[in-house]
This record gives sequence, C-alpha cells and structure tokens, in this order.
Amino acid sequence: MSSNVYHFDVLVIGAGHAGTEAALAAARVGAKTALLTTNLDTVGQMSCNPAIGGVGKGQIVREIDALGGAMGQAIDATGIQFRMLNLRKGAAMHGPRAQADKRAYQAEIKRLVEEQENLSLRQEGVEDLLTEPAAKASHAQSPLAEGPVVRMTGVRVRGGAEYRAAAVVLTTGTFLQALMHTGEAKTAGGRAGEGTTSGVSQSLQTLGIRLERFKTGTPPRLNGRTIDYSACEIQPGDEQPQPFSFLTERITQAQVPCYITHTTAASHELIRANLHRAPMYSGQIETSGPRYCPSIEDKIVRFAEKNQHQLYLEPEGRNTLEVYVNGVSTSLPRDVQDALFRMIPGCEHAQIMRYGYAVEYDYAPPEQLRATLETKQIDGLYFAGQINGTTGYEEAGGQGLIAGTNAALKVANREPLVLGREQAYLGVLVDDLVTRGVDEPYRMFTSRAEYRLLLRQDNADRRLTPLAEQLGLVDSRRAEKLRAKQAEILRLTTLLDATRYEGLSLAERMRRPEVDWPAVVQMAPPDTARELAEAGPAAVEQVVNDIKYAGYIARQNFEVERQQRLASKPIPAEFDYGRLVHLRHEAREKLLRIRPRDLAQASRISGITPADISLLMAHLKASR
Amino acid sequence: MSSNVYHFDVLVIGAGHAGTEAALAAARVGAKTALLTTNLDTVGQMSCNPAIGGVGKGQIVREIDALGGAMGQAIDATGIQFRMLNLRKGAAMHGPRAQADKRAYQAEIKRLVEEQENLSLRQEGVEDLLTEPAAKASHAQSPLAEGPVVRMTGVRVRGGAEYRAAAVVLTTGTFLQALMHTGEAKTAGGRAGEGTTSGVSQSLQTLGIRLERFKTGTPPRLNGRTIDYSACEIQPGDEQPQPFSFLTERITQAQVPCYITHTTAASHELIRANLHRAPMYSGQIETSGPRYCPSIEDKIVRFAEKNQHQLYLEPEGRNTLEVYVNGVSTSLPRDVQDALFRMIPGCEHAQIMRYGYAVEYDYAPPEQLRATLETKQIDGLYFAGQINGTTGYEEAGGQGLIAGTNAALKVANREPLVLGREQAYLGVLVDDLVTRGVDEPYRMFTSRAEYRLLLRQDNADRRLTPLAEQLGLVDSRRAEKLRAKQAEILRLTTLLDATRYEGLSLAERMRRPEVDWPAVVQMAPPDTARELAEAGPAAVEQVVNDIKYAGYIARQNFEVERQQRLASKPIPAEFDYGRLVHLRHEAREKLLRIRPRDLAQASRISGITPADISLLMAHLKASR
Ligand SMILES: Cc1cc2nc3c(=O)[nH]c(=O)nc-3n(C[C@H](O)[C@H](O)[C@H](O)COP(=O)(O)OP(=O)(O)OC[C@H]3O[C@@H](n4cnc5c(N)ncnc54)[C@H](O)[C@@H]3O)c2cc1C
Ligand SMILES: Cc1cc2nc3c(=O)[nH]c(=O)nc-3n(C[C@H](O)[C@H](O)[C@H](O)COP(=O)(O)OP(=O)(O)OC[C@H]3O[C@@H](n4cnc5c(N)ncnc54)[C@H](O)[C@@H]3O)c2cc1C
Repeated sequence: MSSNVYHFDVLVIGAGHAGTEAALAAARVGAKTALLTTNLDTVGQMSCNPAIGGVGKGQIVREIDALGGAMGQAIDATGIQFRMLNLRKGAAMHGPRAQADKRAYQAEIKRLVEEQENLSLRQEGVEDLLTEPAAKASHAQSPLAEGPVVRMTGVRVRGGAEYRAAAVVLTTGTFLQALMHTGEAKTAGGRAGEGTTSGVSQSLQTLGIRLERFKTGTPPRLNGRTIDYSACEIQPGDEQPQPFSFLTERITQAQVPCYITHTTAASHELIRANLHRAPMYSGQIETSGPRYCPSIEDKIVRFAEKNQHQLYLEPEGRNTLEVYVNGVSTSLPRDVQDALFRMIPGCEHAQIMRYGYAVEYDYAPPEQLRATLETKQIDGLYFAGQINGTTGYEEAGGQGLIAGTNAALKVANREPLVLGREQAYLGVLVDDLVTRGVDEPYRMFTSRAEYRLLLRQDNADRRLTPLAEQLGLVDSRRAEKLRAKQAEILRLTTLLDATRYEGLSLAERMRRPEVDWPAVVQMAPPDTARELAEAGPAAVEQVVNDIKYAGYIARQNFEVERQQRLASKPIPAEFDYGRLVHLRHEAREKLLRIRPRDLAQASRISGITPADISLLMAHLKASR
Repeated sequence: MSSNVYHFDVLVIGAGHAGTEAALAAARVGAKTALLTTNLDTVGQMSCNPAIGGVGKGQIVREIDALGGAMGQAIDATGIQFRMLNLRKGAAMHGPRAQADKRAYQAEIKRLVEEQENLSLRQEGVEDLLTEPAAKASHAQSPLAEGPVVRMTGVRVRGGAEYRAAAVVLTTGTFLQALMHTGEAKTAGGRAGEGTTSGVSQSLQTLGIRLERFKTGTPPRLNGRTIDYSACEIQPGDEQPQPFSFLTERITQAQVPCYITHTTAASHELIRANLHRAPMYSGQIETSGPRYCPSIEDKIVRFAEKNQHQLYLEPEGRNTLEVYVNGVSTSLPRDVQDALFRMIPGCEHAQIMRYGYAVEYDYAPPEQLRATLETKQIDGLYFAGQINGTTGYEEAGGQGLIAGTNAALKVANREPLVLGREQAYLGVLVDDLVTRGVDEPYRMFTSRAEYRLLLRQDNADRRLTPLAEQLGLVDSRRAEKLRAKQAEILRLTTLLDATRYEGLSLAERMRRPEVDWPAVVQMAPPDTARELAEAGPAAVEQVVNDIKYAGYIARQNFEVERQQRLASKPIPAEFDYGRLVHLRHEAREKLLRIRPRDLAQASRISGITPADISLLMAHLKASR
C-alpha cells in the first residue's frame, strides 16, 4: 500500500462551508491543494436552515466575497428569495439575507470547487492525523515552553491511503464524535442520515489538543403539500433584490415567497408538559447550545411570558415541497413534535418528513489557536468552522478562507494574513475566538464589532479586495472592477467638494440628515447634475455613506479609545447588577456568574459586548 | 416510547429506484403508504451510471410509465442527452436511453414522491422487521407444509419508533451487510460515503429467509477540467430526442454531448500485471458480479484477444464537471486506477474525484418469492429491486411497481397483479426471478423475452395502461390520452382496410417491406391522403408496426408453442457443446457447467435464452 501516497502543499479536511472556502483560498494563493471529504454529494451542504446571510452574517458573506470566496456568488446564483434586513436602520445595520435552493446551492459550491485550478476535490474519509517531531518550530517562538514542537505531515484516510502535506486545515464541522438526540432516542452521527468521525478526535487528543462538547439543533421538515398556506401570512422577497457578490450585477431569477405562522398558547402548554422528556432539560444533554438559535423548548422556558413565537415556513428549494420550519429547532420526542404541529395554524394536518433533533459534538476551544487559525501546539495544523466552537455557515466560511489562505502562505514562506478588528468582521470573529474563547457556540452579531460603522456590508470590497489582490486571492476581473469603482468614488467626491450651492460645498450640504442624493443632484448646476445623475449606484452609495457617517465614525473611534483606557477599572465584588436595568439579559447572567474583577476582565468574557461595557462603565462612574 | 407508533396500510423500506416506484404505486392504488429511507437527500439516487434505459431496459421504463410510474417522467424532465438505440434494427430492438443530470433526476423523483397523495416520505433507518404468528395464512394454501405461517406487522426504526402495517415492501438495494473493496482496502458501506444495514439482514435470517452474496462495481469519476476532450471523439444526442413517458409531448431542453475514448495495449498490460491485487482475482471477493457490466479487469481476462475497449466519458450533470467513465468499472487498487488513466487518450492528466470500487451485499434468492413478489415464508412481506438479485435501476423500478401494487391490493383484499411473459418485460422479469432464480445479478435483455415483437417499447401503453386504469394505478389524464390514441389507431386501420389501390387494400400494400407510411399516403385518393397525413405520429407508428409485424408475430407465437412442446427432450450426457459454433459464449459456459438432463432443465438455467434453446434443439434434432 506504500504506493498509495499523495503529495500536496495543503490539505483541507471536510468540504462544508469552512472547508470549501479554505480549499479555494489555498488554491487561489497558489498552493497545490487537496480537499478531502467523506461524501462528494454533500459538498457545501446546509445542515440546517436553507439560507445565507442576515444581520452580521450578511456582512461576513460580503467580506468573504471581497476576498474572492465562493459563498456570495453561489447564493446569488441559487437564491430563491432575497431580503435586505434592517433597511429602516442605519447603513451599519443593513444585513443581506437570502433563502437558498438548498441542493442548487450545494451543487454550485461543488462546481466552483471543481473548476478551481490547483485544487483536487476527492471523496475520502480522514481517520488519522500524521505528524513528526519538529526539531525547531517554524514560528519564531514556540508557544509551549516544555517539550518538542510537533509538525503536521499529512493524514491517513479510510482504506489506508496517505496524503502528505506540511499544512492541514481541519474543518470537520459537527462530525467529531457526534451524537444525535430526539427525545429519549440517541443515535451516532453528525447530521441525520450520516455518520460520525471518531478517529480524528482521538488523533487530536493524542496530540494534546483539548476537546469540549457543544450541541446544536435543527427543526423538523414538513411536506408543503400538507400545509394550509391560506392560514399563514405571506412574506415575499424584496422587489429589488440586492446581490451578495460584488461581481453580480443583478439578481434575475424569479423569487418565491415564505409564509409566517406562529406557536400558540396550547402548543406552549404541550411543550411545558413534556419538558422532562427534552434532552436539554432531562439532563441527557449537558453541553451548551447556541443562545441565539434557541430551541423551542428553550424559548418557552426563557421567555415564559410570551404566549406566541413567530415561525417561518421556508421552502428548501424550487423543486421540492420540503419545508424548513424556522423557529422550532427542537430535540423533543417525536410524539411531541407531531402533536405540536396539530396546534400551529396552517400546520394542523402537516406531515413531518424529518424530525427535529439536537446534535452534540466535539469542538476544540479556540484559545488553542493563533490569530492565523493555526494551532499553537501543532505546527501546520489549522482549524476552521464549527470545530472552533462557532455556529453558522457564514462564520465557518469566513474562518475557512482565513485558515486556507494562511496555510498556503505558510507553505510558501510568506507573511500570514491577520485581519484587524477595525478591518473586518472576520477580524472581530477571529480575534474574539482566539483571545476570549467561547462558552457557547459563537455567532456573529453587529454588536460584537466596536467599529461597525467602518465595517459595513456595502464597503467590504473597498476594505478587503486590495489586500486580497496583493495576496493573490482575487482575479484581475474583481480587482479591476473595484479600481473602476474607487475611481468613480474619487471623481464624485472631488466634484461634490468643488461644487458649491449657496455658499457651502455639496459635500457639506449632504452632511445634513435631510439632504439625500437626489436633493444634492438638484442643487448642482446642470452639467454637474447630469454627471452626478449618471453615476453608478454602487459608487454613489459609498460617497453618500462616507459623507453621512463621517461624524459618527469619528465619534465611534473616540469612544473606542476611551473604552480601552478605562477598561481596567475595578468592579466591586458586591456590585449590584440588578441596578443596570438596560443591561441585556445574557450580559447580566454572565456577569453574575463570573463576577469579573475589573472592566478589562469583563470585556473579555465571551458574549459581553462593548455596549455592555459602556453601560457598566457609566454605572461604575456614577456610583463613585 | 410506546406513543411513537405510526399506523399505515403499506410500508416501503428504502427510497431507491424500487422503493420510490413501490410507494408511489401503493399510494396510487389507494393504500395509506409510508416510504421510509435512511436519508432524504439520497431518494432515487443513481449509485452508478447517470443514465436511464437502453435495449431491454428502455422497454421496462416505457412499461413502468404505462403503469403510471415515475421513472419515465423524471428522466424526460432531467435528461441531458437522449438516444434511441438500435434504430437500424427492427422495432422490437429499439431501446430508448438517456443520460441524466444525476442530481436533478434524484430531486425530480423526490418531488414526485412528495406530491403523491396518500404517501408519507420520512427519513428513517429501519433496523428490525416485526412479525406475529398467523393463525391461518391469508393465502389460500400455505406454501410451507410444516409450522405456522408468520405475518408482517411492521418495522422498528433507528431511535426505537415503530411503524405498523400488514404489508411491507423491502427495497434496501446494495445496503444489506455491504462491504466495499478497492484493491486490498475493505470498508463497510452500501455506496461510497454511506453506511450499511445489518439489522435487516439479521431479521430476515431469523425469519427463515435465505441470504446469499453478490457483488457489483462502479468506475472512477474524473474532474472534467482535467480531461483533454480534443483527444476524444464527440457523441451527440439524437437530433429528434424521443421522450420516455407517454405523457411527454416533446423533449425541449438542450442536450449535452458525451465523449468516447478507449483503453490501450499499455493499459491492458498494466491491469494484467496487477490482477493479483484485484479483489475479484485475489480471492478477496468470491461472489459473482453482473456478467454484462463486467469490470475492466474481467474484460481484460475474458476478452484477452482485444487490445482496446471503448470508454464513454459521461457528464454527471449540467452543472458539474464530474465525469462518469463508462467502461472501467473496477476494484483495482487506487495506484493502478491512477496509473491506468495516464495511458488513456485524453485522460493522461485526468484527476480522479472518486475511486472505483466493488461492493458485496446480501440478496435473497428470488425463488423464495411468489409471482406477486411476496415472500412465500412471511405473509405480507414483499421484496423488490437489488435485494432480489437483480441489477439496474429499471429492473428495480419495475419490480417496485409490481410489489407496491400487490402490497396495496393485498391490504384491500383485491386480486393481485401478475403480468404474463407475453404481456410485458416486467412479466418476463418477475417470472424469470421466481421460477429460475439467479446465479449472477439479473439484468434485462430483449433476448430474455420470447414474445419480444409483442413487447415493443412503442406499444407499452396499449399493453398495460388499460390494466393500470382498472387497478387505479393511472389517473384519468393518462387513460384519456391512451383512449384517444386507440381511437385514432382504429380509425386509421379501418381506413387502410377500406381504401384500395390497384386492387389491394392499403393495409395489404403496407405489408410489403418497401412500402412505408409516406408511400401509403401517396397511394390514397386525395381526401383519404389528407386524413392520413394529418394523423398523429404516435398512432401512425402503431398502425405501421401492427401491420408490418403481423406476420412475424404469428410466426413467433408458433415458434414459442413449438419450443414449449419440445423443451422436455433429453440431452445426452456427453453432448458436445463445442459443435454449436453459434452458441453464445455465456450459454456454452453454463451448459457445460450444469450439463442439463433435458431441454426443459436447460431452458430454466438462468441466463440461457429461448434463442439458445432453439439452437440447441435444432442440433439435437440434427444429431438424431
Ligand atoms: C443538526 C444541526 C443543526 C444546526 N443548527 C444550526 C443553527 O440553528 N444555526 C446555525 O447557524 N448553524 C446551525 N448548524 C451549524 C451549521 O451547520 C454549521 O455552522 C456549519 O455547517 C459549519 O460549517 P463547517 O464547514 O464547520 O462544518 P460542516 O458544514 O458540518 O462540514 C463538515 C464537513 O466535514 C466532513 N467531514 C467530517 N468528518 C470528516 C472526515 N473524517 N474526513 C473527511 N471529511 C469529513 C463532513 O462530511 C462535512 O462535509 C447546525 C448544524 C447541525 C448539524
Ligand atoms: C457501487 C455500485 C455499482 C453499481 N453498478 C451497477 C452497474 O454497473 N449496472 C447496473 O445496472 N447497476 C449497478 N448498480 C446497481 C444499481 O445501483 C441498483 O441496481 C439499483 O440502484 C437498485 O435499486 P434498489 O431500489 O433496489 O436499491 P438502491 O438504489 O440501492 O436503494 C436502496 C435504498 O434503500 C435505503 N436503505 C437501505 N437500508 C435501509 C434501511 N435499513 N432503512 C431505510 N432505508 C434503507 C438506501 O438508503 C437506499 O435509498 C450498482 C450499485 C452500486 C452501489
């Protein structure tokens, strides 16, 4: 069998959302890359909801796209309903979201991978990680004082063949020693109908990587033929769907509607009566799940005062009747799931095609990582995605892109890619993971970013594509497109500065909240007005946001500096968090549990946001 | 857990090609049906080649369609290349074949299942069969003299829930105790990347069902980006693609080409040098595989004189670069598979995405079945598909339809559906299975049908749709369509009989080989000619074939009767089969191995065709 050895520069294990972006990025940077995954028919599969984006997550997709990734293009090609969330709020809060045709999305991601030069996509189940002692670490200083540093040499796959490479990106998602729960029933597997991976967990532990357990859950899927949509509220997509990718000019496909229904008092009663049979409450599951994608049983307990919750009936694709019920993630027993729908308007006769379940899996606490997503313990081993204790396709894809890029840069002996918190949500994400760790599955929110007026979804290309071009992550088409846009922005800005209306420049005029772009165009003399009116909408959006938010951004920068200065103030041990009425429920819970010594420690607690810290700081000042 | 019990009339286990047709048929007949399958994402999945139909198999698809099944409609909707095979031969030999977009095909089958009233498609892994002693069998006479008859009551699934029904159709394909081989490497699983099913095998054995092992294999898949198509020959689809379904008026989608290349002397040398590492030759696999889909290593051994074999590079879909290499099914070790392509024109730099492998699995020798596909031992338990020792999607789908229909008829206390050998290829298929058994995976050929001039692909609707209508298998749309066609056939036939040209009726004229339809139209007086010219092509095809083949069909009937009369003549023990130079290679091999006592026994040997028997009979007569 010695002849079954394959040599690559970079290996990526697992072709989920993290793995596909990792492999594409490594190959684009120039590394000869292999992407190994258990089953080629599940490349880029959406384990849970058939949707991409959202507030915070949508920004990440735009950043992945700006860095040359696949997610934005794939959802633009296969989306069935596009909505820009939070449009009534400021630009920093806008979040693009789209429903996907789940199978088409997956096929499109696979196709993009197949088309990538330098990249071999191969169906393989990885069973073991291969290492050798490293005489000296390739990093300047070894993170571990004691003992020799170990270095990756490759992996062994099912059937015995070996893949050799100096850099390996592990993106095995929810599959490490995975156990699924539906009520009292427990079965092994990382996704219903699929298997689990235990060899890799053992390898990691042998190599000294610490593993912990998290859980996540998914709702039941219904047969749309058995739903009475006339009892539900229709939710159409945006009339002018906005693409995710900076390369997509326009979304042309027809959109399909979703439907909204809700839980009822009777259904809450049912769940409450069966809580003792829910693995989360019976003690059968002891690990934490994602607070922000709570199961329905969690919602009933945590928000006991509410007597209904909205449910979204989301089609899983154009060519299937299968419907995802957004809002009832659950691991309640089957009979409770069946009975539940009998009490939901429109779903009284609905048939379940797949039951909801929870899955518990190993993750590696991310404080074991460097900011490049390379493990501190093992030279050349990178982690990305769910394995780092995160949740979400977008978070996984973003980490994959960073890890894959760094793996390729490392084997080429080039400087690594580390994004700052002021540069990208991806910078915030990675920094949060490696400096704060996680105590529940980590999901992105705009509130995690201190500089979120800088990190808008609309300017991700301006923030990141030039850097991506230097690294070789994007092709010339993308770089050229940005250059043209930048030139137009500059031209428009110059024009607005140079043109005056009743004593003030048009730029100064536009700072006023009530003055929008059409108003500015009207103020300009005819020739200039024509020029302004003909400008591309993408460039105009940037010019408007740059001018409108200039003041806020300056203030925000100041605020951040102040926070950093004051963050080390002590908090009295007996401090009464009850007084902070505006403190978020989660923040209060965590602060009470951990009782941090000072604001610095408080700010490092996972899930505590800069806004929480400001609030706390204000109260500490006031109470002095 | 007692509350997790679901009640149905009919259960179908496994949503492959057999299971989907079985469940659709049972539901159409009116039974409340559940289709339970391990993973809803693999419903209707093509395990091996992305194509439907062929000579013999295409006829089955037409019959499935005439009986209201899904396969024909699904391939019409998702085919990417259509070809009518054997067009130069007579109508009995025409076989429609189409390449499928594999994933679109699967999605379409799933959608048809989701849309079916009375049918619940549910993701479940079946682990156990549930039975009870039956005081008296529901069949008039028990097939087993000794002991009580056992009756199905349902199944138990992963996680412990139970499904109850009096009729269960088992269609678990290649998944029973499945073991995959690639060279020396062995892994458990019924299809690469998936698991195996062992509980069901144990249940069956406990219930007294005899299980045997077969094997089948699949070729490697390549990344089309790495193939040099300019070194291959292009193979386009038919200019006028013919639909499979009698409901489809026209195929409108664009077709994509396949490419043809070939093995080389050097590649044969390579395989020969590595035969000792091929599981089929090393002794690692001892079971039989399908003679008519031989592995490349089989071909090199059995046809040692040939120094090249054609290979077809078939795209797996419109939106993927993955390519199926038709012609190199193999379980040779990976390094041999890699090296092999280096020697194939156009594939010198081709990258393998999935390696070829063989799979060994349990099947239940089909002589344990009645002609309804119900097992003799267990009341209410039906088998269909690969589990009966057959191979092929079409054979599986056809059996599924028969078994599902019979399961539904049984629970409704209605007469079963048994098709005669003169009625349908499906009649031949089932009769072959239950009366002859199998000693290698059974595949359909036109040569298996004695009445193949009756069983043409073009007249499947006329043969079967009226029967299907009686059973409730087809909707009124289909039945009406056939009635209109029948009326037109009758009208045209009457017209041809009544219209004379130079003393003979047009019908008599058309019996002449050189007289085709346009010629007949020209012979008619203007008014009749106009009427004939305006007739629908489907009706015309029937009228022409009815008239043209009338004589042959009569002769064939006579021939069949004669064969039956003489089939019991003795064959001398020392009979020299070498003298029969026209005897097929396979037939000689089998006759030599078994040395049947008489023609009756010879005719029952699986794989021995009526044509072989005629030949043998002629020689026996001559040698007397
Ligand atoms: C039941 C369930 C519910 C979820 N609910 C939510 C939710 O509500 N909200 C949310 O944001 N996210 C949810 N998720 C998480 C979401 O699916 C993940 O965040 C995302 O898929 C992570 O991407 P990934 O690339 O890290 O891993 P995955 O998408 O899981 O991909 C991992 C890949 O690795 C492959 N693999 C595993 N082991 C091996 C091996 N040994 N060798 C080769 N390949 C291997 C797998 O086949 C798979 O292709 C849920 C996931 C599951 C399973
Ligand atoms: C490697 C390979 C190579 C092949 N090569 C050829 C070839 O060259 N030529 C050819 O004609 N045919 C070939 N075949 C066979 C072809 O795939 C089958 O003939 C056809 O798929 C049989 O259909 P089926 O419905 O009987 O089974 P399948 O299509 O195998 O479907 C079985 C279904 O049952 C499900 N299932 C299994 N166990 C359970 C359970 N316990 N509970 C619930 N569901 C279950 C499975 O998930 C699957 O959906 C090959 C198959 C394989 C795997």
